[in-house]
Amino acid sequence: MQTLNIVKIGGSIANNEDRLPTFLDNFVAMDHPKILVHGGGSSASDLCKKLGIPIQMKDGRRITDKPALDVAVMVYAGLLNKKIVAKLQGRSTNAIGLSGADLNIIPAKKRNHPTIDFGFVGDITAEDVNTYFIKRLLDEQVVPVFPAITHDTQGQLFNTNADTIASVLAIALSDRYQSTLTYCFEKQGVLRDINDEESWIEEIDHDKYIQLKDEGIIHEGMIPKLDTAFEALQQGVHQVNIKHADNLLNLRGTKLTP
Amino acid sequence: MQTLNIVKIGGSIANNEDRLPTFLDNFVAMDHPKILVHGGGSSASDLCKKLGIPIQMKDGRRITDKPALDVAVMVYAGLLNKKIVAKLQGRSTNAIGLSGADLNIIPAKKRNHPTIDFGFVGDITAEDVNTYFIKRLLDEQVVPVFPAITHDTQGQLFNTNADTIASVLAIALSDRYQSTLTYCFEKQGVLRDINDEESWIEEIDHDKYIQLKDEGIIHEGMIPKLDTAFEALQQGVHQVNIKHADNLLNLRGTKLTP
Repeated sequence: MQTLNIVKIGGSIANNEDRLPTFLDNFVAMDHPKILVHGGGSSASDLCKKLGIPIQMKDGRRITDKPALDVAVMVYAGLLNKKIVAKLQGRSTNAIGLSGADLNIIPAKKRNHPTIDFGFVGDITAEDVNTYFIKRLLDEQVVPVFPAITHDTQGQLFNTNADTIASVLAIALSDRYQSTLTYCFEKQGVLRDINDEESWIEEIDHDKYIQLKDEGIIHEGMIPKLDTAFEALQQGVHQVNIKHADNLLNLRGTKLTP
Repeated sequence: MQTLNIVKIGGSIANNEDRLPTFLDNFVAMDHPKILVHGGGSSASDLCKKLGIPIQMKDGRRITDKPALDVAVMVYAGLLNKKIVAKLQGRSTNAIGLSGADLNIIPAKKRNHPTIDFGFVGDITAEDVNTYFIKRLLDEQVVPVFPAITHDTQGQLFNTNADTIASVLAIALSDRYQSTLTYCFEKQGVLRDINDEESWIEEIDHDKYIQLKDEGIIHEGMIPKLDTAFEALQQGVHQVNIKHADNLLNLRGTKLTP
C-alpha cells in the first residue's frame, strides 16, 4: 500500500512565526500523500486573557465554555489554520484547511464524563470519520490541514485534542494507505532520562512500552500521547514516530511499533 | 445551462445569532448547485476594539494593518465561517468553508492605489479564480462557503470585499453555469425613495441604471454595489438580485439585467 504521512505539530510551532517557516520547508519536502494536523497550544488561552475571558477549571481540568470555544475556533480554525494554508500555498503546495465540520469529515460527541462537564469538548472515533473527500483530495495531491476543531453534526462546534485527530485520521485512512503518524514535540523523542536530550530511545514496541512504564522511565506527561499512539498501532496504523520537529526529515526520534 | 445560485450575506446576518438560523433555513431550501459568500460587518471592528487595536484610517478610508488583518482572518475565516458551516451540516447540507487561500481558489493582488496604502487588502479578478475544485465540489452537491479572505499565493492573506468575491465567483463559473447572484441586504431592494421600504424597483437594466443615477434616485451607498453587479452582468452573469434576506425564496426585490 502507498504510504500516507500524517504529521501533527503543536502550538509551539503552529503559533511561532520563527519556527513555522522552517517546519513547513521540511514538511513540503515530504512525499505526497500527506496530512498536517495542528494544535494551537497556549495561543487561545492568550487571546482569552486579552479579552478578559476567565479560563474555567473544574477539579484541575480545563472546561471549554462558549466564550472559550469561540476563541479556540477563531485562533485554531481561523488564524493559525489559514496562515499555515497560505504559507503552504506560498511553497507551491496546494493545501486546504479542514475543520471537522467541513465536509462533515470528523463528527464528534460531546465528552461524557461521570463527574465533570468539560463543556464544548468533542470526543471522536476513527469509525465516525468520513474519508471519502479526504481520499479524493489526496488523489489530487492536495494537502489537508486540520485544526483541533470538530462538530456534533447538529450545528455545534467542539474543541478536540489534536493528537487524537491525527490518530483517528491515521486509523480511518489505514484501509487504503500505510499510515505513518508523526508527533512533533519539544524533545528529541521518548527519553530514558528526561534531563538528557541525547537519551532518546530508538524504538519501542508495546511490550517494551509496558516495561518502561513499570520501570517508571516513561514520565506521566508522555503517557497519554503514547497510549494514543499505541492504540493507533493496534488499530492498523503502520508506524508512529515521536520526534523533534527539526528532525522531520531524518531518523532521529523514537519509532513506535505494535 | 444549469443554474448556479450564489448568495452573499453581510455581517448583519452572518454575525447575528437570531437572524442567521432563519436565513440558513431558507438557503438550504434553494436548489443545488449553490455557493454562500459572507462578510463579517462590524464584528471584526468590535473585536479590534476589545483587543485595543486601533482602527487605522487614511483620507477617511480604512487601512488593514497586520493586527486588523489577523482579527479579520480570525472572525471571518474562523468564527463566522465555521459556525455557518456547522449550522449547514446541522441542516443536512454538506458545506465546506473555503477562504481564497484554500485550494488556491482566489489569488489576489495587494491593492495598488496612487495615494493610499490600504495595507493587507487584496483585489481580485474573475480570470484569476481557480474553478476546478469548486466545480468538482458542486458536482458532489457540496456547498462552498466563502469568507472575505483571499491570499497573494506567496503566503500572505488579504481581506477582500465579500460583494466582489461573490461577483468574481459568479463570473468565473458562468462558463459552465447560468450564474445567478443574489446580494442580501437590509432593504427590500433598490428603492425609489430611501424612506419608503415599499418603493423598491422590480427590474433595472443597464440603461435604466444610468438614468436612475443621473436622476439622483440611486443614492451613493448603493452605487459601488450596483457597479459591481452590472460589471458581473457584462461579464456573463445571467442575473443579479438585490433583496432583503427574508425574501430569499420569493420574488420581492430588485432584479438587475444586462
